[in-house]
Amino acid sequence: MQSFKHKLKTPFLATDGIIKIYTKEEKLKGIVLIQRKNPPLGFALPGGFVDVGEKVEEALKREMKEEVNLEVSIEKLLGVYSDPKRDKRFHCVSCVYICKAYDDPIAADDAKSAHIYSLNEIPFDKLTFDHEEIIKDFLKDEGL
Amino acid sequence: MQSFKHKLKTPFLATDGIIKIYTKEEKLKGIVLIQRKNPPLGFALPGGFVDVGEKVEEALKREMKEEVNLEVSIEKLLGVYSDPKRDKRFHCVSCVYICKAYDDPIAADDAKSAHIYSLNEIPFDKLTFDHEEIIKDFLKDEGL
Repeated sequence: MQSFKHKLKTPFLATDGIIKIYTKEEKLKGIVLIQRKNPPLGFALPGGFVDVGEKVEEALKREMKEEVNLEVSIEKLLGVYSDPKRDKRFHCVSCVYICKAYDDPIAADDAKSAHIYSLNEIPFDKLTFDHEEIIKDFLKDEGL
Repeated sequence: MQSFKHKLKTPFLATDGIIKIYTKEEKLKGIVLIQRKNPPLGFALPGGFVDVGEKVEEALKREMKEEVNLEVSIEKLLGVYSDPKRDKRFHCVSCVYICKAYDDPIAADDAKSAHIYSLNEIPFDKLTFDHEEIIKDFLKDEGL
């Protein structure tokens, strides 16, 4: 079995979160975007790689905690984004989840800064990877 | 960048299809299950690994053609299944799609046989991996 495993090459697996930030009165303030510390630079959804031995949903919650210090609850899977050209470094497939939190993000790890953007203030022209496409899919999913 | 890539370990990425087979009159006959030729033995949804450089949806269509000789159209993503214990061989994450076809399956590749099972005749106790959970999620999604 080991030899079979070693013959396989597989894309890298990542997960990104569209974190909807709500007030205590359940009013939507916006979603979280980070400014990346490491290349590729630019604005992006918070996210990261899935570890071996970790469920994708666990990886998402870990990354949201590590990168923007938020405890999120997952609402739904938005989609799987797998275009080999979506990440210029290597083939990386991302499972994107819509999730929810109530606090303000605090940047750490890969994030130089992290802020809440209302849905009509998304800086689409500054987004890296395929995050413009992902956020447009999210807005469509929200009926916007 | 290369050194960063080499430090990463990542789960294997696979894709499985719930192929709904319809008559020309658009009547649902059932879904396709295979009997596996290789371990783990048992009944399973058709599926396989995603290659580097290939979109997950392309991998799905390729695998459905290779394993059960069907040209499928994708209806929707059902879910991402990533429990590290779902495959006893290694950590393997599967993106599962609901799809549609009109012909009869013909077994090849990893499949010893392939048949259409009506939705009330699924052999749940003979399914391998977490395909029992996946098919139950599918039935729920169909409102059954």
